[in-house]
Amino acid sequence: MPVSKDQAKEIIRRLTQQGSLDVLSRRLAPTSEAERPFPPDVPRPSDWSAEARRQRIAMLEQHGVDLKQLAGRGSEVDPETLRGNIEQYIGMTQVPTGLIGPLRVNGVHAHGDYYAPLATCEGTLVASYHRGARLVTRAGGAAAIVTTEQVQRAPGFVFRTLADATLFAAWATSEFDRFREIAATRTAHGKLIDLLAHIEGNHAYLIFAYHTGDAAGQNMVTFCTDAICQAILETTPVRPTSWFLEANMSGDKKPTVLSFLQTRGRHAMAEVILPRLIVEKGLHTTPERMAEYWRMSFVGGAQTGSIGVSGHVANGIAALFLACGQDLGCVGEASVGITRLELTESGDLYCSVTLPNLIVGTVGGGTRLPTARECLRIMRCEGSIEGKGQADKFAEICAAVALAGEISILGAICAGQFSTAHEKLGRPRSPHANGVCRVAR
Amino acid sequence: MPVSKDQAKEIIRRLTQQGSLDVLSRRLAPTSEAERPFPPDVPRPSDWSAEARRQRIAMLEQHGVDLKQLAGRGSEVDPETLRGNIEQYIGMTQVPTGLIGPLRVNGVHAHGDYYAPLATCEGTLVASYHRGARLVTRAGGAAAIVTTEQVQRAPGFVFRTLADATLFAAWATSEFDRFREIAATRTAHGKLIDLLAHIEGNHAYLIFAYHTGDAAGQNMVTFCTDAICQAILETTPVRPTSWFLEANMSGDKKPTVLSFLQTRGRHAMAEVILPRLIVEKGLHTTPERMAEYWRMSFVGGAQTGSIGVSGHVANGIAALFLACGQDLGCVGEASVGITRLELTESGDLYCSVTLPNLIVGTVGGGTRLPTARECLRIMRCEGSIEGKGQADKFAEICAAVALAGEISILGAICAGQFSTAHEKLGRPRSPHANGVCRVAR
Amino acid sequence: MPVSKDQAKEIIRRLTQQGSLDVLSRRLAPTSEAERPFPPDVPRPSDWSAEARRQRIAMLEQHGVDLKQLAGRGSEVDPETLRGNIEQYIGMTQVPTGLIGPLRVNGVHAHGDYYAPLATCEGTLVASYHRGARLVTRAGGAAAIVTTEQVQRAPGFVFRTLADATLFAAWATSEFDRFREIAATRTAHGKLIDLLAHIEGNHAYLIFAYHTGDAAGQNMVTFCTDAICQAILETTPVRPTSWFLEANMSGDKKPTVLSFLQTRGRHAMAEVILPRLIVEKGLHTTPERMAEYWRMSFVGGAQTGSIGVSGHVANGIAALFLACGQDLGCVGEASVGITRLELTESGDLYCSVTLPNLIVGTVGGGTRLPTARECLRIMRCEGSIEGKGQADKFAEICAAVALAGEISILGAICAGQFSTAHEKLGRPRSPHANGVCRVAR
Amino acid sequence: MPVSKDQAKEIIRRLTQQGSLDVLSRRLAPTSEAERPFPPDVPRPSDWSAEARRQRIAMLEQHGVDLKQLAGRGSEVDPETLRGNIEQYIGMTQVPTGLIGPLRVNGVHAHGDYYAPLATCEGTLVASYHRGARLVTRAGGAAAIVTTEQVQRAPGFVFRTLADATLFAAWATSEFDRFREIAATRTAHGKLIDLLAHIEGNHAYLIFAYHTGDAAGQNMVTFCTDAICQAILETTPVRPTSWFLEANMSGDKKPTVLSFLQTRGRHAMAEVILPRLIVEKGLHTTPERMAEYWRMSFVGGAQTGSIGVSGHVANGIAALFLACGQDLGCVGEASVGITRLELTESGDLYCSVTLPNLIVGTVGGGTRLPTARECLRIMRCEGSIEGKGQADKFAEICAAVALAGEISILGAICAGQFSTAHEKLGRPRSPHANGVCRVAR
Repeated sequence: MPVSKDQAKEIIRRLTQQGSLDVLSRRLAPTSEAERPFPPDVPRPSDWSAEARRQRIAMLEQHGVDLKQLAGRGSEVDPETLRGNIEQYIGMTQVPTGLIGPLRVNGVHAHGDYYAPLATCEGTLVASYHRGARLVTRAGGAAAIVTTEQVQRAPGFVFRTLADATLFAAWATSEFDRFREIAATRTAHGKLIDLLAHIEGNHAYLIFAYHTGDAAGQNMVTFCTDAICQAILETTPVRPTSWFLEANMSGDKKPTVLSFLQTRGRHAMAEVILPRLIVEKGLHTTPERMAEYWRMSFVGGAQTGSIGVSGHVANGIAALFLACGQDLGCVGEASVGITRLELTESGDLYCSVTLPNLIVGTVGGGTRLPTARECLRIMRCEGSIEGKGQADKFAEICAAVALAGEISILGAICAGQFSTAHEKLGRPRSPHANGVCRVAR
Repeated sequence: MPVSKDQAKEIIRRLTQQGSLDVLSRRLAPTSEAERPFPPDVPRPSDWSAEARRQRIAMLEQHGVDLKQLAGRGSEVDPETLRGNIEQYIGMTQVPTGLIGPLRVNGVHAHGDYYAPLATCEGTLVASYHRGARLVTRAGGAAAIVTTEQVQRAPGFVFRTLADATLFAAWATSEFDRFREIAATRTAHGKLIDLLAHIEGNHAYLIFAYHTGDAAGQNMVTFCTDAICQAILETTPVRPTSWFLEANMSGDKKPTVLSFLQTRGRHAMAEVILPRLIVEKGLHTTPERMAEYWRMSFVGGAQTGSIGVSGHVANGIAALFLACGQDLGCVGEASVGITRLELTESGDLYCSVTLPNLIVGTVGGGTRLPTARECLRIMRCEGSIEGKGQADKFAEICAAVALAGEISILGAICAGQFSTAHEKLGRPRSPHANGVCRVAR
Repeated sequence: MPVSKDQAKEIIRRLTQQGSLDVLSRRLAPTSEAERPFPPDVPRPSDWSAEARRQRIAMLEQHGVDLKQLAGRGSEVDPETLRGNIEQYIGMTQVPTGLIGPLRVNGVHAHGDYYAPLATCEGTLVASYHRGARLVTRAGGAAAIVTTEQVQRAPGFVFRTLADATLFAAWATSEFDRFREIAATRTAHGKLIDLLAHIEGNHAYLIFAYHTGDAAGQNMVTFCTDAICQAILETTPVRPTSWFLEANMSGDKKPTVLSFLQTRGRHAMAEVILPRLIVEKGLHTTPERMAEYWRMSFVGGAQTGSIGVSGHVANGIAALFLACGQDLGCVGEASVGITRLELTESGDLYCSVTLPNLIVGTVGGGTRLPTARECLRIMRCEGSIEGKGQADKFAEICAAVALAGEISILGAICAGQFSTAHEKLGRPRSPHANGVCRVAR
Repeated sequence: MPVSKDQAKEIIRRLTQQGSLDVLSRRLAPTSEAERPFPPDVPRPSDWSAEARRQRIAMLEQHGVDLKQLAGRGSEVDPETLRGNIEQYIGMTQVPTGLIGPLRVNGVHAHGDYYAPLATCEGTLVASYHRGARLVTRAGGAAAIVTTEQVQRAPGFVFRTLADATLFAAWATSEFDRFREIAATRTAHGKLIDLLAHIEGNHAYLIFAYHTGDAAGQNMVTFCTDAICQAILETTPVRPTSWFLEANMSGDKKPTVLSFLQTRGRHAMAEVILPRLIVEKGLHTTPERMAEYWRMSFVGGAQTGSIGVSGHVANGIAALFLACGQDLGCVGEASVGITRLELTESGDLYCSVTLPNLIVGTVGGGTRLPTARECLRIMRCEGSIEGKGQADKFAEICAAVALAGEISILGAICAGQFSTAHEKLGRPRSPHANGVCRVAR
């Protein structure tokens, strides 16, 4: 975002995939426990015993999800199968993974109650997101939408003069249809959807944007753009003195205002209105105080020169990405967004999270790995199913999880529990921690 | 950075821990193979067989590093021991981990030849960083320095008027010595080192900065700041109408220009001058073309509204953080920095990476986990040893690894190998990949 | 801001120049018409006649301000007297100047009721600021504070290695006392107050910060820093391979997050609480709607990647700067800031403006010019008077004027009058404008 | 920029207005003194006498430009004629104006040798820009292009839910053709050319972009957007709970990354290759040192969190805007851009300036004022002439002037003359300045 008129048409197409706009509105509305009962909570949340873990695994497996690797019953991975994911393999880094939920999501694609796996070594994180998820669910669930989707690659071309750079940029953008055909020869799943030109002196950057289907797509856009560039070099009326396949305007692996303002990956949003009672009972504070804190922390964040303003979205995104085989180099860009809390006229709390750079995939890359596959399966997001929008579904769940996490941490800060929660959950139980000398590390 | 006069004194203290400034200069100078032979390369880099993996593990274990968990010979982790790292545990997410090196680092704390473990599911990443590491080593190694260290927590206080906010901020900063004493009652390893005040209308933000020793320290600074705030509320001459323990000016979990300009975590830098021959033979391009590409990509990046400008630092940081039990929510902030390449007068290539927000720890948090402990041990960075600066050492290695990765990817783009490398290593060996229809995903 | 502990001491010193902190609180409190009557409004605000103008001039001259040049009764300026302000002189650009007020300011230095001259060619601007000024005055006036003051110059030094750059930076900051003495030989009015070092690879930037008294001071800091650099080159233990007197880290002539977070010029703030009745009668809207608009427009602004978030501060700053002989190249940086509106618990409207980069002077530069001198005199801000803080006074008035302008435009947008006001005042009275074909230009 | 495919077509249309692309290339190429003699230099540049001024005026008047007001021979302005430019008029602020040139511009619209008036009170500025202009001219002149043009207005709409906001945004963008017709009823000179939608939670922003012809156009886009919004409210299928005509995403009066990446006003560029000899003789430094300084100052600027990176563009833009009746509230946005210097393969110096937010007009607003009209006339840029692109012409001259200024100041810093030039020209000739005590103010 901002989206162009063409992209807006695409949004309408996406939103009406499941039916008319009226159907959509109902699909995104909260659903109370009366309308649809809540599934069971994650078993024994504050129990670290092997038995508690067994019960959690059992609950998931009852729903037909096989969790051999996560459950520690899998065989060792054959290194040969890791080709494409790693080189110079020595072994598996192991990161503990916790389960949160149920999280009710009223999304266009993700519609139902989900348990979500979060892999992290930071104590408190899972408990905090779990708390948020339960409150969102009790409020009828989070509405969630993916509006737009695209991944960019941005080659750069150097010319002798700015006149040449300008002519080249104008020519190249006029060749869009041909470039789209070239891209189509290199991928069956992706599609070139847009081309922007950027001129700075005698430098011309071309920003190619692709739909990448259910794949995260960074490799796909590289291969296609390379092929297009070869064709450009053969036919351009103005020859560059140099060119580079990526000239650092794609936003790959870093947060940028450019990506934040466009879409990179998916532009996903989630929203819930928390009734006053849930805020008071569940977060031990008031909607007024939450709204006041949001104002102060938003202005605070805006003053730091951050890109977007939110709380600790990166915690949840990193944990979900890690569990689900996503590209961890994208945690920075994917976490960029806007968290907004407002007091409604009826005294409840409006909460939303907007994540315009959520770069995710349900096929390819790390999603092939055994535990990642299992974790995606827990959320019924594995693989690519024609017409099902698995990656959109996963993106909507990501946004809803982020929303749950934001609500929980902002609530903790408002209730004065931010420090105590970390004291309780952020440190190992050890003689030192229990002793007289309560020193922090 | 920018560092104050006080911080500059601290820099001198740090730099001279190992001896005089002359000693330091020698310590940071490149060391050729003639002066000190290079240790063996990682065995069989393009071999995915179980045997190749065994040889790599064996090489590391010959150096006395026990790698039971990574080698797949460990016992399952007892969930009870994960208290402090995870809640609602269901199992271990497993991410394949590759080894790069040797990487010669001529740092203040990290001084020697290192193998580094990178956990990732993105093919090509390990091979690319490995290539960079070998070239840096052949050039005599990377100089590396940590200049400053601090972690912030930023409570916010709301007042009736800006006069009150100003008086409060002025009062609070004058109480610094008392606050330092309060902090000392809550931590034996950390130390309050600075306090800044920020006033915006009737809002006052206090930014407390701490040394956190060898711990990443986000919990430590929370506990200490909470204790200080309690004391503030008891003694302030001007009462706030509200206050919050964190008001989003600490930069926690997100890249900000504020953190980029100050230090958050460690301000670490690494540098190497690559002789022309190494660029030509090792990267198949020229120093001139590398310098030209740096200019174009730096200007490109600066135009996107990114914070700092670099290439794909986040890839290496995420992979090293994951392997070593670091906080993955910090990948975004830790990857922020400046990569610079320049042609020297003698026609060689100057390369540096500056990472001012490298938030790392060698004790606490995820460093307790079995595979993380093994990975830190590979680099002799495990735990906290009085006077040894383990976290500084790890930070210097992080910067040197990032430097290696930047050199490799920029070289690949200059040599036109960026796409082909990913085609070769970024996809699984499968009938589809080998067949006629070379479609990308 | 953020201010250091040392700067906080300086803030207390500044704030207590006029008396104790209790005195200060009273000084900054609103003063109702009952306590102190309002001076007359600017005569005949919607009258463009020569007579109306005469009455305005007469009112100012009754207060003892001689306005010969503005009134068109001055003699032509002798070009020789323009040396130091212009070269290759051809004549005087003339910009119409309007008067707003009274604006009640309850500042530390600016304490009283002020008329302010605004030079602009944009219709509506003066009328809008005037409306805001009257409402602020009726609410008892704007509290105003300057907390900190400094102007920077940032030379850059290139070294062979990052080790050299680091050693140099550490050495240079330790020589601060000597540098302060050198600066003192070059200026009687300014004072070196701080020195920060910034290291990026083998580049070291030194950021020298000065008090510049009642002058804007950009030349002063150039001359002093040049002298210091000469001394650095003579005595540095590590020789740079190159150096430059300004390396683009001072923020001179451009908005930067660095300057926004520090002070550049004056950090000035103004604030008023508008009673609900004034909002309803004076702005034709409600505090609730103003607060809602502020939230939406603040989030909107934060998403654009601006530095700070406010409305149209640049309009008022440019007009006041132009009238008063300030440096118009600084309009961009000086306008950066935060505007904040909030509903108070009692249903009134809290409004504040924070301008951390207000670079102003009351002596030197353009303040010497005849009309500028007259305009400064209208606000009793001309020249430098020992212990009177004329530049601080002017900065407080700038902030209060900006506050008036923000209130007025935000009110107009909330009341749906933004477009109609510009239709009425933003176009010349001409046959076309009154005719059937109401086309806009 | 980045420009879309549609905008690229528009670029081609613009560039070929003067003939084929081959014609264009020749038009933008440098023209040596041999091909076309240089007009006379501004008379007696370092002479402040009335006689020197008279000679400058005479030279301009010989070219048929009547300069009554600037020359001090005009009659006083009738306040009634100022309606539309000012309210509550008291008199004319007078700012000394100097002349630079000739500046050879090889632009699409500006093609010839120009003298440019700069109004400022900052000594040295005119002399420095003049020096740059002369060097650019001797190098054959600056190529200059305006590629795109648009001005935005961004109303905001608040909804109950994000589903409503999304549906609204999708609907609104689909109504573009109707909105264009509505806009056409409100302006004969402007044209709605694009509409973007931005969704953040339940907030929808619509960004309307207009061609504004030869007017700066901020009022025009306000009136048209207001009319469109009225139509939206009557026909929208989803009713907003609130709406505002401008929600701070248009970039009006402030630098933003959003505007920097799009065009706001004109996207203008200028470029020159300075032969080594001109750098050495004219700037007293070398292309190598200029290129080195550019690298350091660009990296320096990029680290400050500025929007774009350049030198002191704001100085020249402010001075030219002031002389020519432009909106001074836009100095911040208009000065944003990229300055780039590079050593060419043949050892000369490539220099370019890119200004994507140059918001200018040659009709309406302040261009009606007497001295502004005269100043525009000096550059043959007054008014609107069908098919002549007067505003484009003025924008190209602005970019060329900015280029001249950047070259001169960067040269001064490289040659070590930055401080001495300001000592010589930045202070009045007075007993103090000449005396022993050389204190700076």
